[in-house]
Amino acid sequence: MYFETFSQMKKQLGQLSKWLETAAAHAKAKSFDPNLYLNFRLAPDQLPFVRQVQIGCDAVKLAASRLSGKAAPSNPDTEQTLEELSARVRSTIAYLDTFTAKDFEGAAGRIVTHPRWEGQVMSGADYFLENAVPNFFFHVTHAYALLRHNGVNLGKADYLGSQSLRAP
Amino acid sequence: MYFETFSQMKKQLGQLSKWLETAAAHAKAKSFDPNLYLNFRLAPDQLPFVRQVQIGCDAVKLAASRLSGKAAPSNPDTEQTLEELSARVRSTIAYLDTFTAKDFEGAAGRIVTHPRWEGQVMSGADYFLENAVPNFFFHVTHAYALLRHNGVNLGKADYLGSQSLRAP
Repeated sequence: MYFETFSQMKKQLGQLSKWLETAAAHAKAKSFDPNLYLNFRLAPDQLPFVRQVQIGCDAVKLAASRLSGKAAPSNPDTEQTLEELSARVRSTIAYLDTFTAKDFEGAAGRIVTHPRWEGQVMSGADYFLENAVPNFFFHVTHAYALLRHNGVNLGKADYLGSQSLRAP
Repeated sequence: MYFETFSQMKKQLGQLSKWLETAAAHAKAKSFDPNLYLNFRLAPDQLPFVRQVQIGCDAVKLAASRLSGKAAPSNPDTEQTLEELSARVRSTIAYLDTFTAKDFEGAAGRIVTHPRWEGQVMSGADYFLENAVPNFFFHVTHAYALLRHNGVNLGKADYLGSQSLRAP
């Protein structure tokens, strides 16, 4: 289910891309600078919008890299405009587009290291479930919540995107 | 991976339980009514805290039921205090405690129906990945974000909880 879950996270980044477009249109309609979004926060000691998007992108990018062994592109977190942030999301989607199910064979048994774990490790299976997936949704949902809090017109359908509904 | 992912969501509800305790302690320290949290919103047209918690609980409860065929307890959404909301979370955890991996054998191939899908259906596999998991994290993260926005002292470690780190 690794590849399928990464595909779902890639789809979620596609939804995030659309939210940024909606946010840009909202700023235009209200005549304010769309780059103001980047520094909005829900609490003074929480990370701002720009970091929520960057970390959401890195959560899935680095997880895909760690669970496949495929090198990830470097992103120095220099985005200063909403347009640059959109490009960051698109570049993460493009990286995820390079994966196939075969890349994640053996993912569960990989040994994952992380700069913050002070020399400790996790199995690929544990890392994926306990860290990568919840962390990704944490940051993407914070990006959504920040836009909603600042008046951008989004709803649950924009969050979930299209679903594989079919006739019974 | 169904059972493992439900176990992770159960763990996430355990973290949510702890956030509610921290929120109650914060209200006590600041001498305000802890039940005020229930009606806080991030936007006037977004659901309040009480609904974020109730829907988060139902997202995982109903998904476990739909993907296993095991009946779920009914929850009429009558919680009016932070204590009652904590009990709701604990009761959802208790329901999830009744599951074993065997309950989800064949989950991927189940046909899932939903009152909002106007007669259409999804496969268990699609429903799980495209709806159940992202919807669960959406509401739980909104609950977290609402508490943070209202001054409750939480951090990423409180969100993720303990992880299966080990020596290399």
